[in-house]
Amino acid sequence: MATLSMIEYEDASDEVRLIYDDIRSTRNTDFINNFWKTLANNPVQLRRTWESIKITMADGALDALTKEFVYIAVSVANSCEYCIHSHTAAARAKGMTADQYAELLSVIGLAHHTNGLVSTMQTPVDAIFRIGE
Amino acid sequence: MATLSMIEYEDASDEVRLIYDDIRSTRNTDFINNFWKTLANNPVQLRRTWESIKITMADGALDALTKEFVYIAVSVANSCEYCIHSHTAAARAKGMTADQYAELLSVIGLAHHTNGLVSTMQTPVDAIFRIGE
Amino acid sequence: MATLSMIEYEDASDEVRLIYDDIRSTRNTDFINNFWKTLANNPVQLRRTWESIKITMADGALDALTKEFVYIAVSVANSCEYCIHSHTAAARAKGMTADQYAELLSVIGLAHHTNGLVSTMQTPVDAIFRIGE
Amino acid sequence: MATLSMIEYEDASDEVRLIYDDIRSTRNTDFINNFWKTLANNPVQLRRTWESIKITMADGALDALTKEFVYIAVSVANSCEYCIHSHTAAARAKGMTADQYAELLSVIGLAHHTNGLVSTMQTPVDAIFRIGE
Amino acid sequence: MATLSMIEYEDASDEVRLIYDDIRSTRNTDFINNFWKTLANNPVQLRRTWESIKITMADGALDALTKEFVYIAVSVANSCEYCIHSHTAAARAKGMTADQYAELLSVIGLAHHTNGLVSTMQTPVDAIFRIGE
Amino acid sequence: MATLSMIEYEDASDEVRLIYDDIRSTRNTDFINNFWKTLANNPVQLRRTWESIKITMADGALDALTKEFVYIAVSVANSCEYCIHSHTAAARAKGMTADQYAELLSVIGLAHHTNGLVSTMQTPVDAIFRIGE
Repeated sequence: MATLSMIEYEDASDEVRLIYDDIRSTRNTDFINNFWKTLANNPVQLRRTWESIKITMADGALDALTKEFVYIAVSVANSCEYCIHSHTAAARAKGMTADQYAELLSVIGLAHHTNGLVSTMQTPVDAIFRIGE
Repeated sequence: MATLSMIEYEDASDEVRLIYDDIRSTRNTDFINNFWKTLANNPVQLRRTWESIKITMADGALDALTKEFVYIAVSVANSCEYCIHSHTAAARAKGMTADQYAELLSVIGLAHHTNGLVSTMQTPVDAIFRIGE
Repeated sequence: MATLSMIEYEDASDEVRLIYDDIRSTRNTDFINNFWKTLANNPVQLRRTWESIKITMADGALDALTKEFVYIAVSVANSCEYCIHSHTAAARAKGMTADQYAELLSVIGLAHHTNGLVSTMQTPVDAIFRIGE
Repeated sequence: MATLSMIEYEDASDEVRLIYDDIRSTRNTDFINNFWKTLANNPVQLRRTWESIKITMADGALDALTKEFVYIAVSVANSCEYCIHSHTAAARAKGMTADQYAELLSVIGLAHHTNGLVSTMQTPVDAIFRIGE
Repeated sequence: MATLSMIEYEDASDEVRLIYDDIRSTRNTDFINNFWKTLANNPVQLRRTWESIKITMADGALDALTKEFVYIAVSVANSCEYCIHSHTAAARAKGMTADQYAELLSVIGLAHHTNGLVSTMQTPVDAIFRIGE
Repeated sequence: MATLSMIEYEDASDEVRLIYDDIRSTRNTDFINNFWKTLANNPVQLRRTWESIKITMADGALDALTKEFVYIAVSVANSCEYCIHSHTAAARAKGMTADQYAELLSVIGLAHHTNGLVSTMQTPVDAIFRIGE
């Protein structure tokens, strides 16, 4: 289904295996999902992407679960099927409850709704919302 | 700039004024932003949209600030300029700190990045991520 | 604001003027909107685009106003500010009433809403909806 | 394939069954499509969404078939596979002819084309198109 | 899977066969991909679309492979699964190397990333970038 | 217009100035565009983003101008006004001719067109296009 073949652990170079190992130990699982296996065709990009995700998605001023909600929201609006599935699974793994998911769904639906209304009406931005002018 | 004129409080029907009043008291401000003023051309839609937002964006299983983060994320991916400005302002009004905003920006940027990578590679969804098959 | 300068009638080549004249007579107006003036930097593309629009947007199995509704809907979802403004104006010129516009707005809003819900839930397509398998 | 399991009629609560029954009688069919079955995980959202669709998609200032065209157009631009399939089926059920569908396809294609051109050229909106400034 | 049935060569009208033959001889292959088979339900649109692609995608001021890169980039951002697959195959057929593809992937990922950042921050366009004001 | 204020060189911390200096010397200009000035609110993200762009957009298996074409194509499809303006300017600075721009515009327009057609028809991906199954 992909435009690139997937690199399994057994067939990976040492450089790729090191990153797979770090993904496994960071996430406390043996499972390597397909995103990494396709990305592994380019070990440099695999490493950079993993480092970005590892740093950016960790707990910080926003907790890790809130970050997953944001990730899902972006992926939904961009119609990224893979990303929606993988980050919904990640959110559940980080403790997302059914009630939280139901509200997330409501907010994402509503935001799309009003985005569509505003885009149709081309409502001008209120002066008060603008910064740095 | 809009495709519809904006209805000011002074020119509004009683039906519209009631909703404007509810927006004001709920939000504890006299300010009515342009979204409502353009939507007010259709009082039924104004009322329904306000009721949806009032219910959906309140604290619940997700707190109100988290909901704003999700709203911003959707609006960014949908390129809704007005929505980005108004909900960034709303997030600040609800207490979003500069550090939280910096992380929100990082997560939104990263999600777009990996959405683009996955979409290019057409990575197939891992079987483990699927529910209800 | 554009990435290309705009070609006014006075400065246009004969090739471009012929198309401007056809736009004017077809639309029964002297007004040439900015889309054509930017496109005129490439006379071949100007001619092809105008011919496509002239044929495609005319009354046929769908009437010309219905086609404008569809055009607006696509442009909203694609966040094309210029296209939304110009085709909303075109729809009004072709007789769109305030009530029709209010319903168009409602349908566009609702479609965005359910698009967002479905994309989040990744609902599988019912077998009955598929053709040619 | 979904991120939520689907609720069949047999397994549904009374609250959900009432809505399923209303969908069936309104549409004059026993068939409940997957959208409702995934949405039924949250009965409140199921009810609100169904009520919105029931009201918004009925004949009014725009006839029900024109509304389906608009819905399809939005869903195409948003790449919502499920929505495209379900609303194309709905349009056919409401009498869409092959010729109408062929023209719908042409208009949607053309609108995407010019959206892409305008977005590339960043053509400024003509002053005459703007309202309420 | 499609919303239209696919027209095979054996079942096609003479008008459609002529275009299929031209696709085959232009591309130096017997293979007719599904895009043309679905489009063939409307022979006029089939012919116009094929003529556009034949002219537009040929070597010119931009070489044919560069044009495929641009096509892939647009299709990724629009989440058009079919288009991504078919134009990635086309790029490979025109000589795209693994290194070129790796860089294409990086640029597409990065562009999405900064698009997301800019859209979140709503950075105003620098005066120096604007033409024709 | 932005959701963040812009950091001018004079007001910048030493950490930010170092990056501004590197942007200036790499690009052989004194000009710092607004993207960097808004991003500078978060020096870590400024540095990481600049490093990514510096590496990714340099000549490699794809030349730097081809990369700008891809960048523009993504930004157009994502409706990122700022990105379209800044990368069109960058492409011109790297030698893009008027003829190349005209063809770029044609390809972007055509790709949007066929994306719209394919999305409407939901054409299934040909088996021959798929890799790694």
